[in-house]
Formats: sequence, structure tokens, C-alpha cells
Amino acid sequence: MTKNENKKILEIDGIKLSSVYSGMYNKKRLDLSIMEINQNAVVTGVFTKNKAKSDTINISQKNLKITNPKYIIVNSGNANAGTGANGYKDIMNYINDFSKKTNCPKNKILVFSTGVIGERIKVTNIKNSILKLLSNLKSDSWINFSKSILTTDTKKKLISKKVKIMDQNINITGVTKGSGMINPNMATMLSFVATDIKIKKMSLSKILKRLTDISYNMISVDGETSTNDASLLIATGSNQIDYEKLSLRDKDLFYKSLEEVYIYLAKEIIMDGEGATKFVTINIKNSSSVKESKNIAMSIANSPLVKTALFAEDPNWGRILSAIGNAETKFKDLSKIKISLGKFLVFKNNEIYKNYSEKKCKKYLKNKNIEINIDCSNGKHCSTAWTTDLSYEYIKINADYRT
Amino acid sequence: MTKNENKKILEIDGIKLSSVYSGMYNKKRLDLSIMEINQNAVVTGVFTKNKAKSDTINISQKNLKITNPKYIIVNSGNANAGTGANGYKDIMNYINDFSKKTNCPKNKILVFSTGVIGERIKVTNIKNSILKLLSNLKSDSWINFSKSILTTDTKKKLISKKVKIMDQNINITGVTKGSGMINPNMATMLSFVATDIKIKKMSLSKILKRLTDISYNMISVDGETSTNDASLLIATGSNQIDYEKLSLRDKDLFYKSLEEVYIYLAKEIIMDGEGATKFVTINIKNSSSVKESKNIAMSIANSPLVKTALFAEDPNWGRILSAIGNAETKFKDLSKIKISLGKFLVFKNNEIYKNYSEKKCKKYLKNKNIEINIDCSNGKHCSTAWTTDLSYEYIKINADYRT
Repeated sequence: MTKNENKKILEIDGIKLSSVYSGMYNKKRLDLSIMEINQNAVVTGVFTKNKAKSDTINISQKNLKITNPKYIIVNSGNANAGTGANGYKDIMNYINDFSKKTNCPKNKILVFSTGVIGERIKVTNIKNSILKLLSNLKSDSWINFSKSILTTDTKKKLISKKVKIMDQNINITGVTKGSGMINPNMATMLSFVATDIKIKKMSLSKILKRLTDISYNMISVDGETSTNDASLLIATGSNQIDYEKLSLRDKDLFYKSLEEVYIYLAKEIIMDGEGATKFVTINIKNSSSVKESKNIAMSIANSPLVKTALFAEDPNWGRILSAIGNAETKFKDLSKIKISLGKFLVFKNNEIYKNYSEKKCKKYLKNKNIEINIDCSNGKHCSTAWTTDLSYEYIKINADYRT
Repeated sequence: MTKNENKKILEIDGIKLSSVYSGMYNKKRLDLSIMEINQNAVVTGVFTKNKAKSDTINISQKNLKITNPKYIIVNSGNANAGTGANGYKDIMNYINDFSKKTNCPKNKILVFSTGVIGERIKVTNIKNSILKLLSNLKSDSWINFSKSILTTDTKKKLISKKVKIMDQNINITGVTKGSGMINPNMATMLSFVATDIKIKKMSLSKILKRLTDISYNMISVDGETSTNDASLLIATGSNQIDYEKLSLRDKDLFYKSLEEVYIYLAKEIIMDGEGATKFVTINIKNSSSVKESKNIAMSIANSPLVKTALFAEDPNWGRILSAIGNAETKFKDLSKIKISLGKFLVFKNNEIYKNYSEKKCKKYLKNKNIEINIDCSNGKHCSTAWTTDLSYEYIKINADYRT
């Protein structure tokens, strides 16, 4: 994906957006958005598995099971999690108001929140902003939308992609906001991707599940899942292209474009780490199963020991070896495993590679982009995970978050 | 357990120890020990589940299955892990030599190593030290033994305990070395506890398993398991007391004394963190099962977000709530959960406690010893875990370890 492609954000026929400053923050910034979705659209989502989840997630999950939404309301500045029965009442309060003002059934409204946990949300601020939001719906407001959902993120994260199938253009536009290791606490991961293809909900759900597994699920770097994580995939059906009638090759072409969008957005989250000094790609190949390759990749990606060594630019491969050994895998020993830092082989035949050069590896680790490559010599499956190093800054950001 | 009890280290009839400087480190310090165990003794162990485990562990596990050991050889300064076929040969080389010099069958020798991973061990140094070690075996050498197994630990960790059963004294002495979060990398956890009671191997194994679950397994703070972790429990049988013939009450009395030893040693590991500014006790009560209570305790103990907040002395209870929500539990929501910082209730009925005082909690978190108390209101089971905060020092220690 070139930088150029990245710059031009495409409208998605069937989607309109609107953002305002509602007063969630002391500082004046966009903090509340709505998205209006046409009635032919199909919407699917994946949500946090955290049991302390915000009622925004519970309500949205329930509504999404019943019908496709017409409106999505998203705010930053307050997660509305850990707020109990009052938090639920607050949400229903502004949903009711929104429903009246739009004449839209309540179950066709989804709500998402990100920000501080445990504090009551400013319902009045939301209600006071609804008419302004509704009067300003535009299809070219993706950038403002992407800004309004940010919390501790340092930059907006969005991308568009055009794919030509049967001589017609299909547009895809996606936005996300940071999470996990990068800007943790309740720094929820939110993601909204829209396309104008026509597709059945079942097919769309399968695609989202598959894409989540290789993108957002491969970056949850400190193993923490927020109370508010949500990822929506929307297909407006405004295009003439019917996914269900496409050839396998064209289906794959569409899938690959979406895949590029999801992986780009997932990597953007990793790259936006104030604490991060390295961008680390972990490639696992020749594993006996996809699950095994993922377990190995995430065991390395989540290892504080590997991550502090990367921060120190120290080729301490023993920590990588130990992280592999801690992963849930089928193999009994690591004798077939090969570990490389970039192109430099460091471990083979259960011992340090005979031509291993500490000097070359140290030099390699001075790069900002680091690859850790693991060859399992045990099958055909592969996975890739992305992570950062673990730096002093990480501690600082997390220790300072509320103060 | 008073400080006084702690000071006096008791000999265990049937155990002799000997330690030397063999040259594993550049700095002159004790780095190699042997323990001689009498022939009536029963020995049981638990070992790392890391698949990249050192062959010292593989060999010791195999030998321990066949027979009770007469000798244990332990070195610091080199883990002999990630060293492949050569690493195995090195171990067998010094085991063979030791076997000849002592006329002890090879399978009655256990070996343990801790230190740098991936480097060949200095076999000659070990072999050259054997006669000196054998000539110096004494039953009062526990302190030197405990010093010789340290790596990045800042202080020795050992304790004795005397328990009177049927008018006879049973002695227990245990030593351990650091691990995990505290002084990570391959900073293996090694533990050797000996008592003079007479007991069947089966009973001893059950006791060790049970004690490990509530002590060492509740402190593995960064979720990393080393390649060399080992914990041995030795019963020499030199005493007149036969565990199998004791009343349930007396069995329990003995168990409780051992429990105190194990929990003391586990806490010593946590307290020995150069990076740690807090000692954190996490108590889970009224859980539906022991497993659930452990999952919750360890989810909090392993959360970098909770740990950075503790470092910042910030009562950011939302992070604790989220960590509970991420634990594998039976409950569907957290509405019954109560969270307290020390005696200060902060979360109840799914929302912030009405009398919550941020000021009081901030003041409480300035203490070095912090308690996080979780009431699940969901059953009768409980667990306790111990951890530290996550500080700048942690990053420094781990980034600097090899340099």
C-alpha cells in the first residue's frame, strides 16, 4: 500500500457521518460522532470478551443480533464502563432521545464509547448535540469521524482502498483508534470499516471473523482486552456488485483488499506508541497448525523479557527461545526450530548457530523496524504478529495516564 | 513467622552440603554446590513446563522417576539451556566423572543449573571442583549453599522451621532463588526444601504439588517460565516420626509448617526486586472455585496496567476491574464483585462505591505494602497471589542484563 493510496479517503455510498465537540473533554476537540447507514446495508461486528464490558457493548451486541443498524453513536472521553445500573440508564436515556428525534427504532441504534472508566457520562451533552449532528451528516466526513474517536492516540488512523471487480469500483474505507500496550488503560480499540459491496450478513460475518484473527487479534500486545473493544464491518450494498455471485477469484480479490485495510489499521495502532522505539514483526512459518503458529507469535509478542531486550537493542535470543518454549504448541522439544533476527540465523539444531555473529545482530537491532523470524520445520502453516519494544516511556505513559 | 525464627537455620539430619567457587563467574563467589542425601530419603520435585527446558531438567526428571537421588549438583552462572547435543554431552561428562569419584550410580545424581542461556558450561571447572566439594560436606552449610545458587538476586533466601509433633521435633529448612518479574531473563527459580520426617513418596509428591500451587505458582509475575525452574522437596526419614501414622490433626500441623516455609520463600522472591517499589498482596475470597479465584488473582498480578498504576500510586481501580473481566471465570458479569484497596471499598454493585474517597486511596497507595482485596460473593473459595509494581527500574534491569 503506497502512501498515496493512503491519503485519499473515499466516500462510501450509503454512509454519512457527522462529528461535534460535545464537551466530554475540557479541551475543545471533536468527541462525539454519528454515522448514518442506508437501509440496504448489512452490518456485522466483533466485540470485547472482557466480562467487565461496558453496557454500550451489551446493548449494541443485542441490537445487532436483531436487525441492521441505521445509526451508530460514538463518543470519546468516557467509556461508560464500571458505571452499573446508572450507566445503563444513561445510555438508554440518550438512545431514547435520539430515537425520538430521528424517528428511528431504538434497536436500530448502536452505541460505542471510549475513555475514562468508572465515571458517569455527560448525557445532557450528548442530547444537546443530537440535532446539530443530524443537521450536518455528510459522506465526506470520515476524517473528522476518525479524529473524534481518538483518546490518547497521537494521530488519526484511517485508510481507503479501491478494488476493481468486473469493471466496477468497490470502495473500502476504514478507521480505527489505538489500544493495548500502546496507550493502554481503558484505551479501547474501536474500528469501523465500510464498503459499498452487496453481501449477505453471514458472508460478511465470516470475513470479519477471519480478518480480525489475522489483524487486530495479532497486536493485543500486553494481553489486555479493554471493556469497550468493538470492530464493525459495514457493507452498504449501494454498489452493483453482488459478492455472492462473484467468482472465487473475484471474491478473493475483494477479500485481499479488505485484508490490506485491516492489517494497515492494526499496524497503525502498533506504530502509534509514544512508548515504542521499535516496530517489531514476528513471522512464524512451517508450523503444524495456524493455532500453533499464532500461539508462538503471540507468546513472543507478549513477552516483557523479549520486549525489554529489543528496547536495549540486545540480541538476547535466549528470551525468544524461552517465549517459544512457553507457547502452547504440539512439539515436545525445540530441536527443529530455527530463530532468525532479520536475515541473521541465530538458533538451529537446538543450539546457537555456528556462524552466529553477535556484532551483526546488535547492528541489525539498531533499526527501527525489526523482524523476528521463526521456522518451525513442522508443517505448512504461518502467522504474523506485530508488536513494539517495552521502554521507559511505556511505564511513564501508564503511570501518568490519570494524573 | 518472626524474624527470630528466620535467623536460625536448622540442620536436617541426613543432609550434607558443600559449596565452592568453581570459576563460572569472573568475580570470585560461590557458584557450585553439592548436596548429599541419606539413603532412606524420599525426594520429589516439580519442574518447568517450558519446552525449551535445559537438559539438566530432562535428566533430573528422568532420574527422579527411577530412584531417589543420593547427590544433587547445582551451579549458577550458566543455565546450560539452548545448548543442544553439546549441552547434553557436557552434563553427562561431569555426571560420569562425579559418579566414578563417588561410586554412586549415575541415575542417583540430579543436576540443576541457573544463569546465562545458550553458552557452553565450563565442564572442566566442575570436574576440577568435585573432590574439593566431596571433602567438605557438612550438615551446617545451608547458608553457603543458598548463596551459591543466586544469580541476579540481591540477597540469599532461606528459612528454617521447627514443629513439635508427639513430643518430637521435626526440622524443616528451605532455600530458594529469584525469578520472574523480579530478576528475569533466564533467572530461574530454584527451590530446595528438606525435612527429617519419614514419609512415602506418594504423600510427599501430593504435598509438594499442593504447596507449589499456593506459593511459587502464585508469584510468577510476568507470566514467564524459565527453561530451568525446579523445586525439590526432600524427606530424609531420619526422624522417628512416620507421617503415614500421624493423626489427621498432626498431618495438618506438619503441612501448615511446610506451608509457612513455602509461602515465606515465595514472598522472599517477590520482595527481592530491584525494580519493585511495592509489595502487593492480592486476596480473592468467596469465589465459586479455587481455580476461578486463582485465575482472578493471577490476572491482576500479571496486568502491566495494574502494576504501572501501583508504581504511580494511582488508585486506578478501572484497571483492576478490567483485569478481573479478562480472567477466566464462571460469572457472566461483575455485578457481585467488590473491590477494595486495603480496607477501602472502591467498587460495589457494578459501580464506584458511594463513599469512595480518592484521597484516602491515594494516601493508602503510598504504603510499600499494598493489599488488593476482591470479594466475588459467588462461593466459598479463596486464593492469594503476590506481586510487585512495574517500575522504570524493571525496564532498566532487563534492558541492561547482558550488557
